[in-house]
Amino acid sequence: MNYYPDSVINLIKQLAKLPGIGEKTAERLALHILRSSERDAQLLSHTIIELKKKVRFCARCFALSDNEFCRICSDPARDASLLCVVEQPADMVAIEKSGAFCGFYHILGGVLSSMDGIGPDSIRIAELIQNIRAGEVSEVIIATSTSLEGESTASYLGRLLSEFPVKVSRIASGVPMGGDLKYVDQVTLKRALETRHGF
Amino acid sequence: MNYYPDSVINLIKQLAKLPGIGEKTAERLALHILRSSERDAQLLSHTIIELKKKVRFCARCFALSDNEFCRICSDPARDASLLCVVEQPADMVAIEKSGAFCGFYHILGGVLSSMDGIGPDSIRIAELIQNIRAGEVSEVIIATSTSLEGESTASYLGRLLSEFPVKVSRIASGVPMGGDLKYVDQVTLKRALETRHGF
Repeated sequence: MNYYPDSVINLIKQLAKLPGIGEKTAERLALHILRSSERDAQLLSHTIIELKKKVRFCARCFALSDNEFCRICSDPARDASLLCVVEQPADMVAIEKSGAFCGFYHILGGVLSSMDGIGPDSIRIAELIQNIRAGEVSEVIIATSTSLEGESTASYLGRLLSEFPVKVSRIASGVPMGGDLKYVDQVTLKRALETRHGF
Repeated sequence: MNYYPDSVINLIKQLAKLPGIGEKTAERLALHILRSSERDAQLLSHTIIELKKKVRFCARCFALSDNEFCRICSDPARDASLLCVVEQPADMVAIEKSGAFCGFYHILGGVLSSMDGIGPDSIRIAELIQNIRAGEVSEVIIATSTSLEGESTASYLGRLLSEFPVKVSRIASGVPMGGDLKYVDQVTLKRALETRHGF
């Protein structure tokens, strides 16, 4: 590391803090930034600061937003009777990309995990209840992941929301589309058989 | 891309310009930067600007440097009679890491390539001659890469420097250490046989 000037080493150290970026990659990136135009480097530097300054949580769904309400929550064309509960902003983006959902979202900001000491008070369950109490929602779709924690969060929410006058559903899990049965793991196949449905 | 607020999209776009970073990785990095502390984001942003502001070429060897002369050129303990000619600053770093060289460097800043229209005037050959004419150097080690262009640059320099009162040598190429002969390509094996040496 001592073979580069300090300003290069400093940038390598900062870049190597990013996930999936080791020292070798950080070195390559730093040398690339050094070769790139003054303007490109300034843009990169500036957008990092802007990101931290501007982005906040949407006051309704807790998605990432530049304004009080995110793009989806400010869209009058969306169906206010459908509410999709997800773990993280990235999950919302994945569902949006599928184009299969036209309602609103609620981002929990995590999942229940007794191992990590994350109970119902640590994620946004109170805000979800408040949202449902407002009365516009008629169906809550629970789209937490199918990990152990995601599943147990889903079943906790299923029990909790059964006391409210809303339909509660869970996204289906099973064999991925285009998947070959012989390569699908046993747990997924078991679930696919258990939750089989008519045509 | 439209599912994130503008400031996130802007950073994703800038990060995706870096080599080896696609849109998916850029998205992951941007979300990581968003989650990281204010201080870390500022440090990253600041070091990028500092890099472009501070780093320049060493006035003697053309390595990257924060000052007029780089660390190596300012080191009085190094052997001024040895000069190692490399293509890029990263090659110098690789040789330094090997710990096998205690002289000075000369960085060409590229290789001759008729395909890309890079002739002797486009890389730092005049500066190399000037350095040799100064009279301190007694051996020039040509350590350009073993690519087609690196090899032809090496043989061009070999011919050119034969007119000067210095010894000119080329780093050896052959079977990598720890390498298994049956996995070594034919060109490398041929070279290893041709340049065989006594014990």
